[in-house]
Amino acid sequence: MKLGKFNGKDVCISPSAKIGKNVRIGDRTIIYDNVVIGDNTIVCNDCVIGEPLNSYYSDWDKYDNPETIIGGNSLIRSHTIIYAGNVIGDYFQTGHRVTVRENTVLGSHCSLGTLDDIQGYSRFGDYCRLHSNVHIGMHSTLGSFVFVYPYVVFTNDPTPPSDICIGPTVGDFSQIATGSVLLPGVKIGKHCLVGAGSSVTKDVPDYQLVFGAPAKVIKDVREIKDRDTGEPHYPWPMRFERNMPWQGIGFEKWNNNCDK
Amino acid sequence: MKLGKFNGKDVCISPSAKIGKNVRIGDRTIIYDNVVIGDNTIVCNDCVIGEPLNSYYSDWDKYDNPETIIGGNSLIRSHTIIYAGNVIGDYFQTGHRVTVRENTVLGSHCSLGTLDDIQGYSRFGDYCRLHSNVHIGMHSTLGSFVFVYPYVVFTNDPTPPSDICIGPTVGDFSQIATGSVLLPGVKIGKHCLVGAGSSVTKDVPDYQLVFGAPAKVIKDVREIKDRDTGEPHYPWPMRFERNMPWQGIGFEKWNNNCDK
Amino acid sequence: MKLGKFNGKDVCISPSAKIGKNVRIGDRTIIYDNVVIGDNTIVCNDCVIGEPLNSYYSDWDKYDNPETIIGGNSLIRSHTIIYAGNVIGDYFQTGHRVTVRENTVLGSHCSLGTLDDIQGYSRFGDYCRLHSNVHIGMHSTLGSFVFVYPYVVFTNDPTPPSDICIGPTVGDFSQIATGSVLLPGVKIGKHCLVGAGSSVTKDVPDYQLVFGAPAKVIKDVREIKDRDTGEPHYPWPMRFERNMPWQGIGFEKWNNNCDK
Repeated sequence: MKLGKFNGKDVCISPSAKIGKNVRIGDRTIIYDNVVIGDNTIVCNDCVIGEPLNSYYSDWDKYDNPETIIGGNSLIRSHTIIYAGNVIGDYFQTGHRVTVRENTVLGSHCSLGTLDDIQGYSRFGDYCRLHSNVHIGMHSTLGSFVFVYPYVVFTNDPTPPSDICIGPTVGDFSQIATGSVLLPGVKIGKHCLVGAGSSVTKDVPDYQLVFGAPAKVIKDVREIKDRDTGEPHYPWPMRFERNMPWQGIGFEKWNNNCDK
Repeated sequence: MKLGKFNGKDVCISPSAKIGKNVRIGDRTIIYDNVVIGDNTIVCNDCVIGEPLNSYYSDWDKYDNPETIIGGNSLIRSHTIIYAGNVIGDYFQTGHRVTVRENTVLGSHCSLGTLDDIQGYSRFGDYCRLHSNVHIGMHSTLGSFVFVYPYVVFTNDPTPPSDICIGPTVGDFSQIATGSVLLPGVKIGKHCLVGAGSSVTKDVPDYQLVFGAPAKVIKDVREIKDRDTGEPHYPWPMRFERNMPWQGIGFEKWNNNCDK
Repeated sequence: MKLGKFNGKDVCISPSAKIGKNVRIGDRTIIYDNVVIGDNTIVCNDCVIGEPLNSYYSDWDKYDNPETIIGGNSLIRSHTIIYAGNVIGDYFQTGHRVTVRENTVLGSHCSLGTLDDIQGYSRFGDYCRLHSNVHIGMHSTLGSFVFVYPYVVFTNDPTPPSDICIGPTVGDFSQIATGSVLLPGVKIGKHCLVGAGSSVTKDVPDYQLVFGAPAKVIKDVREIKDRDTGEPHYPWPMRFERNMPWQGIGFEKWNNNCDK
């Protein structure tokens, strides 16, 4: 006799929520009004999906929870809080204790790590992967296949405090390594690599490795060698395929097929 | 029929707690002994208020929970843990999953962001605003109108590990930008700005912008221009009033009234 | 009449778990299959011990939860998640909301701070002390008496993203100060001190103080003076004994006894 995760204990689901087929929901999880969850998605214990916005507290009588869409085939780990008003694609994954505030749009196959804190009003493409404890300030934009490593912060206020809010933009395939800070409004191109612990204060052209505080261009990423083989590692899609859509096909073949 | 946040499910309140008028308490929240909560305060689901101190575990029979005061008109978001022995002013706000350890005194209108970790034995003035994921080491002191941005750490041990514990002190109106570390015992004056990702190893005089690791004085903050208008942005109270007591009045008029 | 922490409310324990004598378990805590908890251990409210691995979700029928061992005389604070497959020694302590992923081995007397995120497949010696919000990437190795301060990150991928995973190694008695990043595969010797906010990109010999991004050797730690007394502070075991096994004996005497 095994102890299962889905016992239906104190699960609380709004009558207006639309729950797909084969959805499993963990104990004590709350699904608020107007949430839509796609087929085969798993929401683990102690999560909150469709968390009401601030106006809930001041004007409960008139409050109408915005629609929240969670794609199918997703896995949302325990203690995650997803606000109302988010639109999240299929094959979404989270670690534990993730927070996603309102008006965020995530493409398909995105994954958010333990303790990630997405402040809302941001756009992600497909296949973005944020490791643990990343903070995305409001009004940030991530392309597709952007990977962000632990303790990275996307900031948005150039002269704090102010009413200006301009988040960073990161292009497709770029990698932002551990502990880096992206300053408000910086634009990072495609296939860039921001080295660990950098403060990026200026725009970064495509394919550049930048490092330092303030970050400076070190070299073209295509000059970086793999530690073991001595072969060029970047552009990384040529050399890494785990959970990527080109797994088993190779990036070039997949990419050629996409272009057609 | 809407799904509400306050259903009284498994709420647990000590008989010795004093709960003000119109207080709303979310499901599964625990209010321990000798907690006092002011009128109109909202405590959301899965919070712990008056968390017992360490001696609870070793000596439960003799243990007496210290008094904990939470001001009125506050909003404490879900999964927040506030230890016993704290005194917190009116109009307090938290994000989700905040932790505040014992013997911390916060003035009125303070706000703590998601995942903030306040280690106790610290003092905050009024209108302090900590964004997400700030760590305040023990024995820190913040004046009033101090804003602290994500992933800032206040440290307190100059020669780790030791039994010396001297936290930083930050003067009124100063701003500590994202990812900065304040070294033990540093004193930051009034109206300062610590740039993102800095390590502050020495005291900072009033009105200085410092940046870098170790942080160096870059210029007087009054020389910094607003990105859009080109006008000086600092001292910021002249240019920013959202949720500040001078909202709609202007800082100068408000300040003159205060002085009388 | 006092409100206690251990009311047996909604506690969920697998029939295959082995719970020692005098163990106290907080409300809503879940103990999954094949967990072993030593005598006198306290697990506070809303914890998860023996969290099932990813294969649980894809193959529940065949899934068999690996054994998880938690030593005796431990104190696990609320909202902590410990995955299945971990082996943790006696006198373990955690802060709140700690996450420890699978296949991690911790010696005795280790302590993990609030929000720590241990990614699994790592080894810790005895008496390691991690303060709040430390991130240990997979395949890291810590000796004994290693102290790690808030917001430190141990990384493991030299050319992200790749399939190489080589964590850092830190020798006995070394101290990694606030906000530092250890790059993949770096080896830090014994009795080292990494200054706050450093990025360690190269190996560090025994007894060195390093600082900066990239970190450079500043001096021998034995040249660092105590702030108050002006005496040398390092090697720190000569000057610090709180909760250490040489408390009340002195390090030299204890060390001589150990050697016999």
